[in-house]
Amino acid sequence: MSADSSNVAADEIFKEFKEHSIAAFFKKNRQMLGYAGKVRSLTMLVHEYVTNSIDACEEAGILPEISAEIKQTGEDKYSIMVSDNGPGIPKTLAGKALGSVLSGTKFHRYVQQRGQQGIGASGCTLFANITTNKPIHVKSSTGRDAFECDVSIDIKSNKPLVSNVADVPRDFRGLIVEGEFGSVKYENSDHGVYEYLKRTALANPHASITLTDPTGKQYLFPRSDSSMPKKPKAVKPHPMGLESSDLIDFAHVSASRKVSSFLTESFSRVSHDKVDELKKIATGVDFEKDPKTLTWADAEELVKAFSKVKWMAPETDSISPIGKKQVEAAIKNILNPGFASVAERKPAVFRGGIPFVVEAGIAYGNALPQKQANASAQESTYAGDESFEERGSGKVLRFANKVPLLFDSTNCAITYAVRGIDWKRYGISDFDTEPINVMVNVSSVYIPYSGVGKQAISPEEEIINEIKFAVMEVARELQRYLHGVRNRNMQESKYKTIVRYISQLSGDLSELTGVKKELIEKTLRSLIDSKYKSVFEDGDNSEEGNDGHD
Amino acid sequence: MSADSSNVAADEIFKEFKEHSIAAFFKKNRQMLGYAGKVRSLTMLVHEYVTNSIDACEEAGILPEISAEIKQTGEDKYSIMVSDNGPGIPKTLAGKALGSVLSGTKFHRYVQQRGQQGIGASGCTLFANITTNKPIHVKSSTGRDAFECDVSIDIKSNKPLVSNVADVPRDFRGLIVEGEFGSVKYENSDHGVYEYLKRTALANPHASITLTDPTGKQYLFPRSDSSMPKKPKAVKPHPMGLESSDLIDFAHVSASRKVSSFLTESFSRVSHDKVDELKKIATGVDFEKDPKTLTWADAEELVKAFSKVKWMAPETDSISPIGKKQVEAAIKNILNPGFASVAERKPAVFRGGIPFVVEAGIAYGNALPQKQANASAQESTYAGDESFEERGSGKVLRFANKVPLLFDSTNCAITYAVRGIDWKRYGISDFDTEPINVMVNVSSVYIPYSGVGKQAISPEEEIINEIKFAVMEVARELQRYLHGVRNRNMQESKYKTIVRYISQLSGDLSELTGVKKELIEKTLRSLIDSKYKSVFEDGDNSEEGNDGHD
Repeated sequence: MSADSSNVAADEIFKEFKEHSIAAFFKKNRQMLGYAGKVRSLTMLVHEYVTNSIDACEEAGILPEISAEIKQTGEDKYSIMVSDNGPGIPKTLAGKALGSVLSGTKFHRYVQQRGQQGIGASGCTLFANITTNKPIHVKSSTGRDAFECDVSIDIKSNKPLVSNVADVPRDFRGLIVEGEFGSVKYENSDHGVYEYLKRTALANPHASITLTDPTGKQYLFPRSDSSMPKKPKAVKPHPMGLESSDLIDFAHVSASRKVSSFLTESFSRVSHDKVDELKKIATGVDFEKDPKTLTWADAEELVKAFSKVKWMAPETDSISPIGKKQVEAAIKNILNPGFASVAERKPAVFRGGIPFVVEAGIAYGNALPQKQANASAQESTYAGDESFEERGSGKVLRFANKVPLLFDSTNCAITYAVRGIDWKRYGISDFDTEPINVMVNVSSVYIPYSGVGKQAISPEEEIINEIKFAVMEVARELQRYLHGVRNRNMQESKYKTIVRYISQLSGDLSELTGVKKELIEKTLRSLIDSKYKSVFEDGDNSEEGNDGHD
Repeated sequence: MSADSSNVAADEIFKEFKEHSIAAFFKKNRQMLGYAGKVRSLTMLVHEYVTNSIDACEEAGILPEISAEIKQTGEDKYSIMVSDNGPGIPKTLAGKALGSVLSGTKFHRYVQQRGQQGIGASGCTLFANITTNKPIHVKSSTGRDAFECDVSIDIKSNKPLVSNVADVPRDFRGLIVEGEFGSVKYENSDHGVYEYLKRTALANPHASITLTDPTGKQYLFPRSDSSMPKKPKAVKPHPMGLESSDLIDFAHVSASRKVSSFLTESFSRVSHDKVDELKKIATGVDFEKDPKTLTWADAEELVKAFSKVKWMAPETDSISPIGKKQVEAAIKNILNPGFASVAERKPAVFRGGIPFVVEAGIAYGNALPQKQANASAQESTYAGDESFEERGSGKVLRFANKVPLLFDSTNCAITYAVRGIDWKRYGISDFDTEPINVMVNVSSVYIPYSGVGKQAISPEEEIINEIKFAVMEVARELQRYLHGVRNRNMQESKYKTIVRYISQLSGDLSELTGVKKELIEKTLRSLIDSKYKSVFEDGDNSEEGNDGHD
């Protein structure tokens, strides 16, 4: 064979061997961050900034006031400015927070937040750098000091480049970020910024959000609930959610003196009694030794023992759902439906020990105006996902930790669950055409997103099932409502038919019996009225009951 | 409000600010690498190793001989060994290649290869480390020296940990990697290793692949074509595929003395005449200056000018499709269908300048045995994508650069294209139940994957359209074949009906005319035979023509 003679030596092949930075990786594969398609890219940018702003406000205990302003600056070029009334950012960290991918405060925490990766804001900076070569302008006031600066990313090293740092008057509080981006487009579609912010308002009734679109038109999504949501609490991990490698990681940084105290101090629901139980099962583990000396074999034995002990369910203080009352208010404010119903499930767990909560709402009738389905399909240069979303995907409003998910609907646990329901059983003969909108919010300290762009929840069985239960709960209420409406319509039409015959019948009876027609007619009518009156009153009541008293 | 009093100072919030490594990121989000679900994870591991092996063999001009051996070592624990006859790996680089995420030879190249990110093999090491705490054992012989070592990843720093390095006898040539992995499961399903390797063989007829499954059973997918595929060539980028930031990157590392020569030397299809054209359009750019001084404004003007010049299409030497003859042979060998048809499209471009080639094949009748559809749904602990793939997804065999894509089918350009075809027009009344399999391979120097796990091609319009055209081409041939078969069946049944009456008719005619029954019967039969004979012969010929002559 000539194969050997044409061999290239390994050295030759490997002479180009290089390490590259995570920033360079995402520069080459920006679609993995969600930057695919011009409309989608613009929405992703606004999403990253708004998400960070709401997180920061909540962490500081401030009711969020967010404003987004979008201006066109050229062909497929727009400037985006997002400002908040949050805690601001320390001068020393502005560079890293916005100019280094995988830097942030949230990665190692066991606490529910919208952001969790430290990719969002630096991803925006990267996108500005590679599409317009412009830095991001940052203006921050922490209350104590106020400054501004420009931030870029050195892509090869994934290090921030900070310039033009200057102190500014302390006449504001919060953070203002502004950047100019290319390969983006503002559009009023299902995947556009307006829809994104509307849904953000829906899931965050404690936030006030303003949008100024490129024509200068202002939209305000007002605060519909001024109580601060329960602050998400950092909790200790539950033993059932741990793998051997996690246990080793925790043990080797533990300050506890013994394995036994390490277990009770580091994890949730591990009491001294439980440690005694564990000792009887994991007989190969020395519970008296320093946790820093815990071996892989120890960890494996402990994880196996964890699965044999009966635990209390994980604490759920870590979870901050939107709240049933708040969801209901928001649905009414924003979607203005004829009927609305909301359910909040009890906390459940997936992967053994990660707690999560599902909320679901249904809005029926007089719902969202039909979206400009064709608008988003007009992009011809690089359509990304936009033209290929499942038909009617706008009818399922998906949220993860109160953040709207607008893209990649086909591969999402919420889509699987909602589409998997037999809607006919609930009186909906065609989900895609009837005026029904379903909203689902999944809250957890760890949302298993399917991709770096965080637009879909990985379809894990436990999560899908919980969503199904929640949606079926509200669907049953919808069914009762529809049954009531349809029953009433039927009775009403029967009533009208009968009434139409009264006059004729009274005349005929009068001729036969000699009794006055007016008397017969009055008697008959009061008989019929008395039969149907209760039906209508019931109907009215039941509708009012569902509809609230506004 | 009490909001202010509960404010947390920015310093407090940011005290936990940390940078984390890409390895730590993927440890936390392993589902983004495709490690979701036990069966899928095992297949992903084999996929990463086999992909690297075939790439290495091809680059060295060696006909690949790959062997994969899988053994169960505990509950949900398996060892995987993949060996090849490739060029091996230099001792100095083994650590980085297998123990540092985002290190490799392929990232900056403009050449078609299966791998492109430097994540695959190190992702496997990471997965072994976090599920069994075991290193990967590597044994390599480059022909000159042979060694073995163990490789792990220091997750916090994303640096390789290499141990037990030793020289070994040079009695082999190639690379052997072996690891032990937890949270995995061997299963003979549509998403399992067997199916993956079968499809790999289908798209790589020049490779010989052996699988030893956990029961010790051996499967051989033999080489069906011993010619070496055209070696993918590194090509220069086409101007239409460039953005300003790419142009700056190239210019600032260019050795050319002038912008004009930089353009002709760095990019494909840029002749001196074209530079003259560009000069007339991009009047603000100084073509005589050092390319290292090219500004962003220059680059933007040049990119705009590129779009106004008429270019020759990109070179396509960079693309190495499977080949029409090879696909046909492989389909017959492996799927053994009643009918097969293959089409290879001419090269096309997406995003303006990235060339790609689509191949499509159809196998009809006597096709793949029905897959164990339920087997994969049995995983209850953490199902990942497995139970939720689109029904009948196994009927579309998706490939990117000859690598089978088994997961995330719903969000893939190939699925959109194949499912978007009106199959009834081609004589297929129900795509999901008829015995039809469609195979599509997309080849390019850059495949726009939708996720890091590289299991789906981002649904870009140009790619979807090319796939549709290719599949419609083979579908038309299928239609002709089915038409022939159905026509012949109809004629045959007519013939039989008529023949059944010959005897009766001959007797009756004989009685009426006095002519001998035998004579009438013989004449009638030869009359009928002569009419129908041509039909059957045509039918036979056409089938043979489609079926090959084996």
